Amino acid sequence: MRAYLVVDHGSRRERSNRRLSEVADLLRERVEDPVEFAHMELAPPSIADGFRACVERGASEVVVLPYFLGPGRHANEDVPRLVEEAAAAHPGVRYKVGPALGPHPLLADLLLIRAGLPEK
Amino acid sequence: MRAYLVVDHGSRRERSNRRLSEVADLLRERVEDPVEFAHMELAPPSIADGFRACVERGASEVVVLPYFLGPGRHANEDVPRLVEEAAAAHPGVRYKVGPALGPHPLLADLLLIRAGLPEK
Repeated sequence: MRAYLVVDHGSRRERSNRRLSEVADLLRERVEDPVEFAHMELAPPSIADGFRACVERGASEVVVLPYFLGPGRHANEDVPRLVEEAAAAHPGVRYKVGPALGPHPLLADLLLIRAGLPEK
Repeated sequence: MRAYLVVDHGSRRERSNRRLSEVADLLRERVEDPVEFAHMELAPPSIADGFRACVERGASEVVVLPYFLGPGRHANEDVPRLVEEAAAAHPGVRYKVGPALGPHPLLADLLLIRAGLPEK
């Protein structure tokens, strides 16, 4: 069974961290498999916590979704490294880590939506 | 005439900054009005540079599109303040600043697309 783990940077501000929980809820509306969330740093649940939660829900494969706008060091190096470390505690559980969100045409659409502008 | 100014955080890495230029190109495919881009900090063009470029292209209204994932301090406070300061040099030019991108259902769609997963 597959589970999804959406990962953001993490913040010391609880309000910022709550937004990842909202994103997880949006994902739950879209996929039938379990969805967990984790913060890369600064706040629990950690990536190790989130990975373990996926395994405890029965996952044999964890698909990690980095909630980062750009493919910088965090999305490309830090998150994959932390996932690899987390996975080491769960031999036999496969995993993959997706890329960052942007740039992507949907983000240009969303910029215009956010500005209250219909797409032309 | 309206112009769009898409603004990201800015980076010391040229590769990161180039991605905003790609986002500006995606916007140019979507709107007929001029599109400029600017970095909040760390690299030119600054928000003042970008605002001036919009005015030089004939804009009487500048619509600022923050390319930030979360509605944190940068998108909510720093960018609007820098836009206000930039606009002060161009009396008579109206402007507005959109909100951050997330959370939004399109971002959940994009997370799944990025993981190579069809939306269910």
